[in-house]
Amino acid sequence: MVNLNENYLKNFISSEEIEKFQSKVNEINSEINYCSENENDFKGWVTLPSKFSKDDVKKINEAAEFIKNNADVFIVIGIGGSYLGAKASIDFLHSENYNYLRKNTPKIFFVGNNISSGYIEEILEICKDKDVCVNVISKSGGTMETAIAFRIFKKFMEEKYGKKEAGKRIFCTTDKSKGTLLKLAKKEGYKRFEIPDNVGGRYSVLTAVGLLPAAVSGGNIEDILKGAIRAEKDFLQADLKKNSCYRYAVIRNILYNKGKSVEIIAGYEPRLDMFFEWWKQLFAESEGKNEKGIFPSSAVFSGDLHSLGQFIQQGSRIIFETVIKSDCKLGKLTIPESKENLDELNYLQGKSLNYINKKAFEATINAHTDGGVPNILIDIKDFSEETLGYLIYFFEKACAMSGYLMGVNPFNQPGVENYKKKMFTLLEKPGYN
Amino acid sequence: MVNLNENYLKNFISSEEIEKFQSKVNEINSEINYCSENENDFKGWVTLPSKFSKDDVKKINEAAEFIKNNADVFIVIGIGGSYLGAKASIDFLHSENYNYLRKNTPKIFFVGNNISSGYIEEILEICKDKDVCVNVISKSGGTMETAIAFRIFKKFMEEKYGKKEAGKRIFCTTDKSKGTLLKLAKKEGYKRFEIPDNVGGRYSVLTAVGLLPAAVSGGNIEDILKGAIRAEKDFLQADLKKNSCYRYAVIRNILYNKGKSVEIIAGYEPRLDMFFEWWKQLFAESEGKNEKGIFPSSAVFSGDLHSLGQFIQQGSRIIFETVIKSDCKLGKLTIPESKENLDELNYLQGKSLNYINKKAFEATINAHTDGGVPNILIDIKDFSEETLGYLIYFFEKACAMSGYLMGVNPFNQPGVENYKKKMFTLLEKPGYN
Repeated sequence: MVNLNENYLKNFISSEEIEKFQSKVNEINSEINYCSENENDFKGWVTLPSKFSKDDVKKINEAAEFIKNNADVFIVIGIGGSYLGAKASIDFLHSENYNYLRKNTPKIFFVGNNISSGYIEEILEICKDKDVCVNVISKSGGTMETAIAFRIFKKFMEEKYGKKEAGKRIFCTTDKSKGTLLKLAKKEGYKRFEIPDNVGGRYSVLTAVGLLPAAVSGGNIEDILKGAIRAEKDFLQADLKKNSCYRYAVIRNILYNKGKSVEIIAGYEPRLDMFFEWWKQLFAESEGKNEKGIFPSSAVFSGDLHSLGQFIQQGSRIIFETVIKSDCKLGKLTIPESKENLDELNYLQGKSLNYINKKAFEATINAHTDGGVPNILIDIKDFSEETLGYLIYFFEKACAMSGYLMGVNPFNQPGVENYKKKMFTLLEKPGYN
Repeated sequence: MVNLNENYLKNFISSEEIEKFQSKVNEINSEINYCSENENDFKGWVTLPSKFSKDDVKKINEAAEFIKNNADVFIVIGIGGSYLGAKASIDFLHSENYNYLRKNTPKIFFVGNNISSGYIEEILEICKDKDVCVNVISKSGGTMETAIAFRIFKKFMEEKYGKKEAGKRIFCTTDKSKGTLLKLAKKEGYKRFEIPDNVGGRYSVLTAVGLLPAAVSGGNIEDILKGAIRAEKDFLQADLKKNSCYRYAVIRNILYNKGKSVEIIAGYEPRLDMFFEWWKQLFAESEGKNEKGIFPSSAVFSGDLHSLGQFIQQGSRIIFETVIKSDCKLGKLTIPESKENLDELNYLQGKSLNYINKKAFEATINAHTDGGVPNILIDIKDFSEETLGYLIYFFEKACAMSGYLMGVNPFNQPGVENYKKKMFTLLEKPGYN
């Protein structure tokens, strides 16, 4: 389903270098898999797929069905981990043009992921003469961007539908036992979905956080979970000969120790763009601490070859690439015939775009490797739900391993408090001064 | 119109360090401004704004008028510099949600910026029952992605409208005297716009390449040029006390020499996202050679504070930020009242989102600077056409200076040939084997 290909690392890393990490990986694997009673270890994601209850799947699907039947526009309110995974999933399964496609599912817009007045006004304007449902996602309810957007959309919904009907159209994804959003949801009688206690934001895509929006878009969430369950099993053991996600983690660390400080995740389908944004949060927040971390960046080829390509080929030698590639065929366009051949493209006549895109990939990975840029290749079977679930878990577990190997705690984010404290002080939030 | 603020550099750089560069900057400035007769020096952009003829403005506006009156959907075909500047301008002036806004200008889609069969099929599907105009942009016509997309859309247009009417709806932006696209355009009788000989792709946004799509979106291109002309004058002299774009270039180089290998350009309005993509190509292609270059990356705050924020605050100390900020008010939303205050947000009641966004900016730039991340602040007056033109020229000239200071030729891109040669060989293009 997901295959790690090391052919383009030959000039940079040896198998021996990787295998030296085995005992360290064994140790860390036990630590990651160890199921403590501590609800605050943020390792809930490890067994989340296999523990996901059928009842919860049913509840999400029922809500999705209601939303599909009652909304032209579905507004998802969240930021960071309460936004990126949901959007990544929708684009991965359908297209980054999802909203423009002819379909019998609602258009989906994301708000609460910025504080732009102009942006939110535009989305309100889009909603004006449409039927709308809203999903607000926040573990605590205390995230300012989310709370602001939700106060605005709650008012909008109540003015549009009246309090009672609005209440049926608003769905809350939040903590099961505490927080302002939970209190509010109970008071207003909104339908609620749980974010488990010991799952951090960037590890929450395989909860209702990511699954409800994915289901509304027409994604089959049982299949997403099926893929994740398979990955949970496949990556349970620490053996670096078999565990490709740990192998990826080790390779990253070796490259980092050799001076590669930037990782570009790249792919050849535009729908991967948001998946890469999800990946960036996962690795940036998990590793970027104690003055350490590989800086995560992304590119969509072939487009970005005409932007970042020159730098990758010949610029500062601080980069390695991780390329996500699939041989599955997403469309069936071929190069049309042309008798006159004015564009001199007849050498491609009749060839499929998938074939040409694949050749662009082959040429690029060879050119970049020749240019001294290590390339990690991750082949994915297709853009199905199962592959998505598998790939998400692959990176989640790889990230945990990679962070521990780097000597940081991959599950906290102490640095994000700094600007928040300053902001709340400037805004004179009670308790800050 | 554009103001460079060095307040957040105090702990990292002294004025003396900057002023030491003066004589070198003088020399390079003469080189940049020197108007040779060499059509291949790629310095045409230096005087492009002031030399832009009124006739050419008129011609672009007439074509834009035709397109606005005859198209629901406007397809722009181009890649790299023939795509990023146009999209950046449209989003900067209107919104990244431009296509969703109620307006009397066409929806605008970009193709030819990838080889994804699925992507192109989706855009064709969108065009099916709509009136369409097409703008194909390529200096030579030899860029494969553009040529492929254009062959597909040419066929689509001719099948939809017949050859004659299609010919009126297709606009070519290309070289004035050579290349396959020019030949094709002449043969088919398409309306043509020129890309001057001595302007490279990444420096072409202030030609018809960027201006025609901007005009179709309703942008006033006279005003874009007016801003650029003002910048052309303001940045003519090398005096580092007055020339802020050169000052920016010097500061980048000092930070680079101090080990800062990644620059994150960041802003607080989502509409800046594509402007940052244009900026990334400009700097990556200009500087990324001879194993040198600052790796360009971007972020849209406050959203990406919940993604990259942790890394910036406490991760590897290889980053500096360049923040684009405006005090202009893009919308007028305020935090609604709530008697119950269930979301505990009443401390913000009645405050405008613009005010809160500004406080988020202040808190963030202070937190990041405290955390050891140098911040270059660029204040822009607003999101008007004049400011856009000024800002584009600011970065273009800064980039030329910065590249020369780094010891590279900022106007070539020898590395992008590597993958192209391999690709054409794999695709058995005549002349390659």
